[in-house]
Amino acid sequence: MSNELRQRLFNELEQIVLIDPHTHINPHAPASKTLADIMGYHYYTELAHSAGLPRERIEEQGISPKELVGRLVEKLGDLSNTIQVSWLLEMCREFFGFTDDRITPQNWEKLFDAAERKMSESDWEDQVLQQSKLEQVFLTNDFDDPLTGFDTNRYIPCLRTDDLVFKLHEPAVRERLAKATGIDVGDCRSLRAAIGKLFEHFVARGARACAISLPPSFAPSQIADSVADPLIRAVAGGGELTTADQDAVSRFVFWTLAEHCAEHKLPFDLMIGVNRQVYPAGVFQGQDLFDQRVSLIQYKDLFNAFPQVTFPISVLAQISNQELVSYSWIFPNVVTNGHWWYSNIPTYIEIDTRARLEAVPRSKQVGYYSDMYKLEFALPKFRMYRRVLAKVLSEDFVIARGWSETEALALGRQVLRGNVERIFGRAV
Amino acid sequence: MSNELRQRLFNELEQIVLIDPHTHINPHAPASKTLADIMGYHYYTELAHSAGLPRERIEEQGISPKELVGRLVEKLGDLSNTIQVSWLLEMCREFFGFTDDRITPQNWEKLFDAAERKMSESDWEDQVLQQSKLEQVFLTNDFDDPLTGFDTNRYIPCLRTDDLVFKLHEPAVRERLAKATGIDVGDCRSLRAAIGKLFEHFVARGARACAISLPPSFAPSQIADSVADPLIRAVAGGGELTTADQDAVSRFVFWTLAEHCAEHKLPFDLMIGVNRQVYPAGVFQGQDLFDQRVSLIQYKDLFNAFPQVTFPISVLAQISNQELVSYSWIFPNVVTNGHWWYSNIPTYIEIDTRARLEAVPRSKQVGYYSDMYKLEFALPKFRMYRRVLAKVLSEDFVIARGWSETEALALGRQVLRGNVERIFGRAV
Amino acid sequence: MSNELRQRLFNELEQIVLIDPHTHINPHAPASKTLADIMGYHYYTELAHSAGLPRERIEEQGISPKELVGRLVEKLGDLSNTIQVSWLLEMCREFFGFTDDRITPQNWEKLFDAAERKMSESDWEDQVLQQSKLEQVFLTNDFDDPLTGFDTNRYIPCLRTDDLVFKLHEPAVRERLAKATGIDVGDCRSLRAAIGKLFEHFVARGARACAISLPPSFAPSQIADSVADPLIRAVAGGGELTTADQDAVSRFVFWTLAEHCAEHKLPFDLMIGVNRQVYPAGVFQGQDLFDQRVSLIQYKDLFNAFPQVTFPISVLAQISNQELVSYSWIFPNVVTNGHWWYSNIPTYIEIDTRARLEAVPRSKQVGYYSDMYKLEFALPKFRMYRRVLAKVLSEDFVIARGWSETEALALGRQVLRGNVERIFGRAV
Repeated sequence: MSNELRQRLFNELEQIVLIDPHTHINPHAPASKTLADIMGYHYYTELAHSAGLPRERIEEQGISPKELVGRLVEKLGDLSNTIQVSWLLEMCREFFGFTDDRITPQNWEKLFDAAERKMSESDWEDQVLQQSKLEQVFLTNDFDDPLTGFDTNRYIPCLRTDDLVFKLHEPAVRERLAKATGIDVGDCRSLRAAIGKLFEHFVARGARACAISLPPSFAPSQIADSVADPLIRAVAGGGELTTADQDAVSRFVFWTLAEHCAEHKLPFDLMIGVNRQVYPAGVFQGQDLFDQRVSLIQYKDLFNAFPQVTFPISVLAQISNQELVSYSWIFPNVVTNGHWWYSNIPTYIEIDTRARLEAVPRSKQVGYYSDMYKLEFALPKFRMYRRVLAKVLSEDFVIARGWSETEALALGRQVLRGNVERIFGRAV
Repeated sequence: MSNELRQRLFNELEQIVLIDPHTHINPHAPASKTLADIMGYHYYTELAHSAGLPRERIEEQGISPKELVGRLVEKLGDLSNTIQVSWLLEMCREFFGFTDDRITPQNWEKLFDAAERKMSESDWEDQVLQQSKLEQVFLTNDFDDPLTGFDTNRYIPCLRTDDLVFKLHEPAVRERLAKATGIDVGDCRSLRAAIGKLFEHFVARGARACAISLPPSFAPSQIADSVADPLIRAVAGGGELTTADQDAVSRFVFWTLAEHCAEHKLPFDLMIGVNRQVYPAGVFQGQDLFDQRVSLIQYKDLFNAFPQVTFPISVLAQISNQELVSYSWIFPNVVTNGHWWYSNIPTYIEIDTRARLEAVPRSKQVGYYSDMYKLEFALPKFRMYRRVLAKVLSEDFVIARGWSETEALALGRQVLRGNVERIFGRAV
Repeated sequence: MSNELRQRLFNELEQIVLIDPHTHINPHAPASKTLADIMGYHYYTELAHSAGLPRERIEEQGISPKELVGRLVEKLGDLSNTIQVSWLLEMCREFFGFTDDRITPQNWEKLFDAAERKMSESDWEDQVLQQSKLEQVFLTNDFDDPLTGFDTNRYIPCLRTDDLVFKLHEPAVRERLAKATGIDVGDCRSLRAAIGKLFEHFVARGARACAISLPPSFAPSQIADSVADPLIRAVAGGGELTTADQDAVSRFVFWTLAEHCAEHKLPFDLMIGVNRQVYPAGVFQGQDLFDQRVSLIQYKDLFNAFPQVTFPISVLAQISNQELVSYSWIFPNVVTNGHWWYSNIPTYIEIDTRARLEAVPRSKQVGYYSDMYKLEFALPKFRMYRRVLAKVLSEDFVIARGWSETEALALGRQVLRGNVERIFGRAV
């Protein structure tokens, strides 16, 4: 009975048309062209590498998409238990009519060809969106992205700011900034002006969020112009900064971004806790890990200083979820946001979803985003989340608290869709 | 079948008459007078504020209880998912005959009036205690509480010591101490004497515990009199201390309290992990959060130095529970104590209860306390715990280990009631 | 239906013949001789002590095995809830025909005598191995163990290296090293030579792993010979080192061990996170605890420097499991290894097993080891794990993902047995 209830709720949740509030979609090539676009996703390359496939086999220059898929398939057997491979199977079944239990060295070529045929249909992008019930897709745009040549009502720009905060000392970054804004950054004032230009450009093109990923050590605080000015001048002059001074520049830029979020009424997505390049010999995008010794107390000054800015927060370490629940329960401007990366597996999604639904106002929870690079991933990833959500709604709300199914579904709809619209605003 | 079993165990657990080993009840006004006393609990005000209700609307001077409730009700819709609002509904149903599914702008006034009528009955306090099966209620008394004018057999004094440990540098605290003890603290010796007076007073009035809440950074250690003396003299003389010196004073006072717990055979309740005033613009009592980077290893010296003192320990961060389980499994004087504040939601209570029941001697577990400010909260809070306990007993003991229901209930009774009596002593 | 499925899978998992990849078995006395050998396991003595039995009663010189068991039985009532006591009951039922629900002051003597009779049978060791379906047992050998006088095909040597890394400053340790290798360590070169001798000896006797337990503060890194040389000379000369210098020596020795693991193709078992002697007044082996503030990021340099060495990793703090999952998902040479000590209870095993099976390649998971001191413990400990594994396989794979039971069991077999063979090599 409880299983039937869960299934009923899941079926209803499956009907909800989505806005995906965080992805890495390239709006100029949103859907896959071959299975290699799907299996080239770092989840598969890094897992295959972890299971023993040498990086050189995966990243060899000039191999064809088909050759790459063939090599990865050799390792799929060792990964068959992973939830990531279950996404792959689900995509192949839903989109390409695959019916076997496993993708194997025997059957993959047929699948590859079938997928390629399907993907070459001229309306493939639209098919995927429709089949996935996906209405809008938030992007992750470089700060110097011209944001032209795509439908910004379907693909919503978001200003990604990691480079500005952590790599301003790199000449290439400063050149990109100068080119994008027409401003040569030389001090606090010109930096502020340049950032202002970026925000104006993004907002004019319909951006709905500013976003950044942050290492566990980062602790934002306001840096006075008098402190930052000589540092930025040194940076602009090509000087080397000490680690402490570089950190001060990062904090200055970060704080300036928050000020512009306030001015332009943009939510500031914080993705907290990633260490980059922990495994430099890993495959592309498969080199980052984390140190779970991080606390949201590091963001205390920020949350207090910007009550008018909404901070949708993702945490990489699952153990950070209780802090996220508690800070969202107390701070009006802190909002829970999805289940990120290493926390994005059903075991952790379930515990985290339960806790959030028990203790964070329902209006302050963005249930899920796909983080996808290609459109095909929204379907299996959101479906994974909807399964967990259906389980929690049925057990904790309908059964344990006596809610009607209608009420439970309204809660599900709110965290899946309603809050995305309200918190990130809605296209007119 | 498993559901029926759980229900049967729950029904039996519901029959157990309770001693609530930690509350913030004011014994001179233990029960509520209007719904505002209930909805003014910081859980509701802070959640409503988090959901967008301005603090000024909540804390406006001079508004009537009814006006306050009306304002909070506006936000209840956004909080309907929270376990805290489920407590509110349960209280309204059990005590005031409320039968609707939700408290809304449409129905709240009728509820307010019905509740007020009920609460104005002359024996309301007794009714609540009886309906809640509550026999004794531990208090949280300021160190200078005269402890008079109430029945100390029903309301058990406990000496709360946060002010002594962390605010001795405040003149007001020293004045209160002087007034309460007749001793002007000027050095270690007089401080010890004053604390001795407090313990004598509390113990004479039937106190059963000394208690304190502690920030994550606190690490108790013994401070020699020769080190502490000049610092306390400086404090007494109104001097400013460095942070390190203030911390030394805190550790000296704390250690002295432990010595007196040993002398007076009082358990020392440690509530570990709260950072005060993280969100200073929050509502009253809705400003505190935490940094989960804390370890019980910080208490190693204390546990070793005072084998004769029982330390019932509450942890604020859920991730601290495994350390609590492990330290209670090893140290004879460490005891698990309830589910505190941000950990007091079913998701976390369930995981923590399971682990405790699997690995801590059954005689060393205080299952639950309400932490309530008004008597009406014992019923829904303990019921939440009893539901979880019934689930764990049925699944982990009756089904998984083949225990009889009688044995499982005996275990439940022990952690709910028996251990409270034994660990905190019993009124004669 | 789900319960029947789980039971079916459990029954099948119970048929798998095991290799236990980590124990503390003494190959010269692997099985117990009396119940005191079983109840003298630190789990029981420390829990009885925690529940109030004085250490002097447990460790009194000259008491008979029967007297010791009698004393411990007095406290079993307070421990009846623990999973450890459920192991005890399971052993008594399976091996000694015990049929009561509890071991009590009334029935224990009869049990003691029955057990003694059984254990005195000449083939008791073989009986236990056969009844427990145990084929091979990995040992934990001191570095100077001659490894003679036992069947190294049944009892597999493993080189335990805690003493070398953390106690080289103790003269007794250096003497043992000199005696075992014929080399007086006086500098980096002679230390390397001595360690080389140890590896040659162990590998010649069929060793399959090098192993070490590590405190939470340890962070391996390469120390140059030029830095280490004067320190080791000082150590060899009986000089006192600063804490920092001692730590440098530890890191130098540790790194040298890793180099030899590479050379000899031995996996290096890391057991991360234990603080020794936190409770010095505790019973033998019941004094260690932990500080959960530890991260695998501390091992970043090691994992990068030794891609050719497999690191099967155990973590003491349950909260470390997500890092372990994530690091195993990224680093080819990091492998998950069992459920260690304070994490070895069903609540935590279940969460950790779920997460590992969802996100770590199936070929990189060593499901369980017993950590036992006496052979009888393998049966109840592995059975506890198999119960959890059956639950996770049934719920997460057969029900949630539609796997066949055959496929699910193949996964179970791989993490229980297959990976042990492959990762630690197999006796020829």
